[in-house]
Amino acid sequence: MSTISTTSWAEPLLRGEGPQQRRAIAKAITLLESTRADHRAQADELLTALLPHTGRAFRLGISGVPGVGKSTFIEALGLFLIAQGHRVAVLTIDPSSTVSGGSILGDKTRMEQLSVHERAYIRPSPSSGTLGGVAEKTREAMLVCEAAGYDVVIVETVGVGQSETAVAGMTDMFVLLQLPNAGDELQAIKKGVMEIADLVVINKADIDPDAATRAQAQITSSLRLLGMHGSAGHSLHDESLWRPRAMQLSALRNEGVDRFWEKVAQFRTLQTANGRLEARRQKQALAWMWERIETGLKQAFRGHPAVREQLPGMVAAVTEGRIAASTAARQLLASASVST
Amino acid sequence: MSTISTTSWAEPLLRGEGPQQRRAIAKAITLLESTRADHRAQADELLTALLPHTGRAFRLGISGVPGVGKSTFIEALGLFLIAQGHRVAVLTIDPSSTVSGGSILGDKTRMEQLSVHERAYIRPSPSSGTLGGVAEKTREAMLVCEAAGYDVVIVETVGVGQSETAVAGMTDMFVLLQLPNAGDELQAIKKGVMEIADLVVINKADIDPDAATRAQAQITSSLRLLGMHGSAGHSLHDESLWRPRAMQLSALRNEGVDRFWEKVAQFRTLQTANGRLEARRQKQALAWMWERIETGLKQAFRGHPAVREQLPGMVAAVTEGRIAASTAARQLLASASVST
Repeated sequence: MSTISTTSWAEPLLRGEGPQQRRAIAKAITLLESTRADHRAQADELLTALLPHTGRAFRLGISGVPGVGKSTFIEALGLFLIAQGHRVAVLTIDPSSTVSGGSILGDKTRMEQLSVHERAYIRPSPSSGTLGGVAEKTREAMLVCEAAGYDVVIVETVGVGQSETAVAGMTDMFVLLQLPNAGDELQAIKKGVMEIADLVVINKADIDPDAATRAQAQITSSLRLLGMHGSAGHSLHDESLWRPRAMQLSALRNEGVDRFWEKVAQFRTLQTANGRLEARRQKQALAWMWERIETGLKQAFRGHPAVREQLPGMVAAVTEGRIAASTAARQLLASASVST
Repeated sequence: MSTISTTSWAEPLLRGEGPQQRRAIAKAITLLESTRADHRAQADELLTALLPHTGRAFRLGISGVPGVGKSTFIEALGLFLIAQGHRVAVLTIDPSSTVSGGSILGDKTRMEQLSVHERAYIRPSPSSGTLGGVAEKTREAMLVCEAAGYDVVIVETVGVGQSETAVAGMTDMFVLLQLPNAGDELQAIKKGVMEIADLVVINKADIDPDAATRAQAQITSSLRLLGMHGSAGHSLHDESLWRPRAMQLSALRNEGVDRFWEKVAQFRTLQTANGRLEARRQKQALAWMWERIETGLKQAFRGHPAVREQLPGMVAAVTEGRIAASTAARQLLASASVST
């Protein structure tokens, strides 16, 4: 990667067209994903240059367990949006990639028509790193796509581990895809995913309409109960606030995608008018900053020579009960010259 | 507090009796709660001296929403255990104290008979500090009580915020008290508390036996579903492993306390034999060490002169979208001389 000025990076990305812009986007994202210190400095410069051109897109997070039909849904939604004149970017956080280095979700062929459409940009998950690192790269890639004029950015993840929280933490609206199967509901509640969902979509409703209707009723009731004791508790009758809800559709038959987008539009209108969309983005940005700071502090601590030397012995002493955990923590901090 | 040797601290605590030992315990806990650096050094020395005498007690965590009858239950349980020859310490993590400086749970008069019994030691929640700080002091106080020969240590909290996780993270067995009211169940699942419960006790079963029986059936079914996809999923038929379960009793009528203690004994026997009790304690100690390290790193970072100077401006720039959050994080880390 050559060292060229930020302007020459940003120009084709902001104002380029077709393949030229596409190449600029790919190049920018590759730069952002680089771990080299000089690239990182360039990347920060580029991000700062792009930032004024971001924020106008709608950021839609989509999650669901394997088999729920995410690809089919996103393909149907993406083509629907393009037909309406939108430009659609699809980014992916694949928690499996952080473990195996492989990527289930990265396979572009999952979305046959969307992936070759000139008004769509599909980028697979960064292929390695911690979840936090992958999430950071995805957030930055999202900004790049927004600067390039994509006005709907979809961030997709599979329902494993903490990736849903990461996706909900970088999007304006978090949608949970569910199968018409009540057993899955409890899992989603247990994992705290139901609680962060702005909309629950029961996909594959065509397979068993009765089950889908039962699931919708049950999820609606759960969403109400989950919201009752939360911060929205007082707002059950406040029409200016969005209340999480459940709907059903069939992405495979392309039934209900229009109704889905109506709900998204309604969410966006309400949350823009009541200021919650802006507040959510500000909160997300600050949370992101602190998360990266904490990660950086831990990395630096673990890399400190004195810590590297003493840590194995301390871990053994704590495990064997020879030293209290709090004492060990204080000693390790002191040897890294961290004053507490 | 005078500077005396650790030995003179530890002796009356380990081998003293009656009021003399009681005074030594109180003095040790006060030392542990002190924020003065010289006290902290003494406290670490004391902890290390006491540590070989700890670990033989059974650590029982108890949580439940206000009104569920925790005090009545702990009083009944404590007196039952004393009658069986045990010595019982009751420690409290009161999340309200970290906010208000007051303490709901600290009121000793809540347990009239237990609090005056010579074989019981009741210590209210530290009266201020963050939840992490309060939890650390409680963990340390637990070690002091164990060294003094209390063989059952009960750590109690009220079901608010993250305090249940803190209590489950320092005890051998975590018990959730519930009312015979199915609506509360979903709240407990939502908060992730049901998932960490080793035993759910439906208290006040005498008020409405039918409701209690329904609640027990429903919670039993939820516990099974919650466990199915978890790490215990493969072990449903393994008799050497404990499976979370639900029972009902009435602490007010003193009905079922013996059955409760039978279940605890069964848990302890199983988890000791299969090695999970020891593994849990080791995991807790390491998690505790890392938690305190992270807290220390964050405190030092926030206290760094360059960070104090730049942070307000950075927060404003991130909030207003003038700088990317990840860029801000890198710049702040760099100005605190943290290399990433």
